[in-house]
Amino acid sequence: MDAPPTVSFLSDYGRADEFVGVCHGVMLRIEPRLRIIDITHDIPPHDVRAGALALARAVQYLPEGVVLGVVDPGVGTDRRPIAVGVEGGFFVGPDNGLLAPAVAMAGGATAGVVLTSEHHRLPAPGATFDGRDVFAPAAAALASGVDLGELGDAIDPLSLQPGLLPLTRVEAGAVHGEVLWIDRFGNVQLNIDPEELRSLGLEVGGVAEVRIGESTRPLRWVEAYGAARSGEAVLLVDSYGLVSVAPNQGSAADELGIRPAQA
Amino acid sequence: MDAPPTVSFLSDYGRADEFVGVCHGVMLRIEPRLRIIDITHDIPPHDVRAGALALARAVQYLPEGVVLGVVDPGVGTDRRPIAVGVEGGFFVGPDNGLLAPAVAMAGGATAGVVLTSEHHRLPAPGATFDGRDVFAPAAAALASGVDLGELGDAIDPLSLQPGLLPLTRVEAGAVHGEVLWIDRFGNVQLNIDPEELRSLGLEVGGVAEVRIGESTRPLRWVEAYGAARSGEAVLLVDSYGLVSVAPNQGSAADELGIRPAQA
Amino acid sequence: MDAPPTVSFLSDYGRADEFVGVCHGVMLRIEPRLRIIDITHDIPPHDVRAGALALARAVQYLPEGVVLGVVDPGVGTDRRPIAVGVEGGFFVGPDNGLLAPAVAMAGGATAGVVLTSEHHRLPAPGATFDGRDVFAPAAAALASGVDLGELGDAIDPLSLQPGLLPLTRVEAGAVHGEVLWIDRFGNVQLNIDPEELRSLGLEVGGVAEVRIGESTRPLRWVEAYGAARSGEAVLLVDSYGLVSVAPNQGSAADELGIRPAQA
Repeated sequence: MDAPPTVSFLSDYGRADEFVGVCHGVMLRIEPRLRIIDITHDIPPHDVRAGALALARAVQYLPEGVVLGVVDPGVGTDRRPIAVGVEGGFFVGPDNGLLAPAVAMAGGATAGVVLTSEHHRLPAPGATFDGRDVFAPAAAALASGVDLGELGDAIDPLSLQPGLLPLTRVEAGAVHGEVLWIDRFGNVQLNIDPEELRSLGLEVGGVAEVRIGESTRPLRWVEAYGAARSGEAVLLVDSYGLVSVAPNQGSAADELGIRPAQA
Repeated sequence: MDAPPTVSFLSDYGRADEFVGVCHGVMLRIEPRLRIIDITHDIPPHDVRAGALALARAVQYLPEGVVLGVVDPGVGTDRRPIAVGVEGGFFVGPDNGLLAPAVAMAGGATAGVVLTSEHHRLPAPGATFDGRDVFAPAAAALASGVDLGELGDAIDPLSLQPGLLPLTRVEAGAVHGEVLWIDRFGNVQLNIDPEELRSLGLEVGGVAEVRIGESTRPLRWVEAYGAARSGEAVLLVDSYGLVSVAPNQGSAADELGIRPAQA
Repeated sequence: MDAPPTVSFLSDYGRADEFVGVCHGVMLRIEPRLRIIDITHDIPPHDVRAGALALARAVQYLPEGVVLGVVDPGVGTDRRPIAVGVEGGFFVGPDNGLLAPAVAMAGGATAGVVLTSEHHRLPAPGATFDGRDVFAPAAAALASGVDLGELGDAIDPLSLQPGLLPLTRVEAGAVHGEVLWIDRFGNVQLNIDPEELRSLGLEVGGVAEVRIGESTRPLRWVEAYGAARSGEAVLLVDSYGLVSVAPNQGSAADELGIRPAQA
């Protein structure tokens, strides 16, 4: 059997309002066979950086099809609503850096359009709700087989607003990283690849001196969350291959006073 | 391909308990082809007014099929469990005003029953969980093609408990409205149609004097959320065609001390 | 039409991160026809007892197929990742007591394996995310028709880690129970079957003296939530057949200072 057409959907809409359900309704009216994966809708409101990172972490695990991302503080301004084609699918959303890291992980955009076609939009009675009226209809149209070119005017796929991927900084033999993500279990993911540590002659193992804010503390490297002693924060290479500070039954973030960097 | 049968589901069950998943299971055991849209399940517990308004906002965007709404403070009392037919589908839920505004937007009920058929209920071991035992089975039965009349005794579709749709009040040339909804982004939707303002000779544009509680403040009309200056609350016609007070990156509700009216 | 293969999924992943969406993606890449029921993902982090109880309450309402449960404080330690066969389906998850009560309610395990097959795992770049890399792939494989025996080495199905099902204690003619669950509506489910009360000559009706912590108070038995007077906490047999303390429009737990027992 053929796989049904798929839209994987991420937003900052939350679940308390009916925004997500309405976008599902809009898409299923256009493409009744559609299967929708809700990646998450609890990106903090307007936090493009957090949305872009979540999308980049998720994208390699999604089925082929359309990725719909909506974190859009500039709705109604002149930021471009876009769709881009990649190997095996499409990305739809605002051109504000939300999609760019995931698009890059999917091999880069091969084509792009600004979503200007009135035929593939819903009429809005007042201020714009582009998720409902522009992005969801475009995603469903692409999933149902409509050509990318029918959705609007072509743009240079290289003109996408880049995402801000934070870089590490090396100083006096130490790597200065940044917090990418604090998850539900209190794990703190950093933008540090263990290879970078090794290339500087630093060990990924034993005990490392970690400076957080104004204080430095020794943290033990472990291979699994369960290897930490009760109440001990540890270092490990997480399931995305990045260095994380992990709590043991608690929140490393709370314990150590860590907050994600701001975009 | 035929569209699969669809149930669009709204409740105040939240997501922390397994209530929503259990209702999905009950429906899919009855109709395995079913597609379920979760409109939202985070209506505040027992808030029939908030549920009715969310359903009314969503209904025009849902596919044809069955709408299942469960916000039911009177479960186990003598409020009627009902199903009504409309053009293109059915509504199922308690007869307490939750469904009425959405039924009206769908063109009004053409037929109705009280859900008395034991054959289409699950046996309950104790106090009633009507979402699981009465409403979900009825919704799945209707979606699978069972006749409305088989689910129970016919009622006059005009006998539905009406929803309380708040009216505006005009006094001394000013329109007194009510807060319908405060969304995740802090936007405050009022029950005021911009046409009503225009019909009174009030401008929908420029700067308006808005009284909130005991204080009056000037708010600027804008056409898009993004047109507000940093930290400025503004007025706009929202994506449902109603007047809203919108914050810029924050919560208008928090800033201005606004709360939704109580049912 | 044949029912599509089904996975019913419960976890403590929450919805704020993309964990649930990623597991959906992993499963749908393996079995595109799959239908996924999200039982709940808001089990408190690492609370195996709460997860086991929710799964046991839900299981009788789920369609045939695979049940995937992931509440896994011991991820990366030597607790076993398992799949077991029952009449009409399979259970997949960690062998830590999470699955055992639901497996028992489904008639008991007839076969079991430890999930050791590399062929049915995703490669992990660092510390384990077994939900994504081990359990979701196994659940999807079983749903798609792969034989249980292909997923790993057979284990004695009777060797499953039992769940801790709390027992009541009878002393001086009184039944001492334990709080199993406090739901969104503030209802407090106890591990007391009304038959146990009757067998001791206690009445399920009238007014009962209930001791909570250090204080005793009279609570009235009712048959439906709606039969309580405003602000009155009551006793009833709930929709699972167990004794519950129910608030009337509020939280019995908050009112009476009740908290769930710890595992």
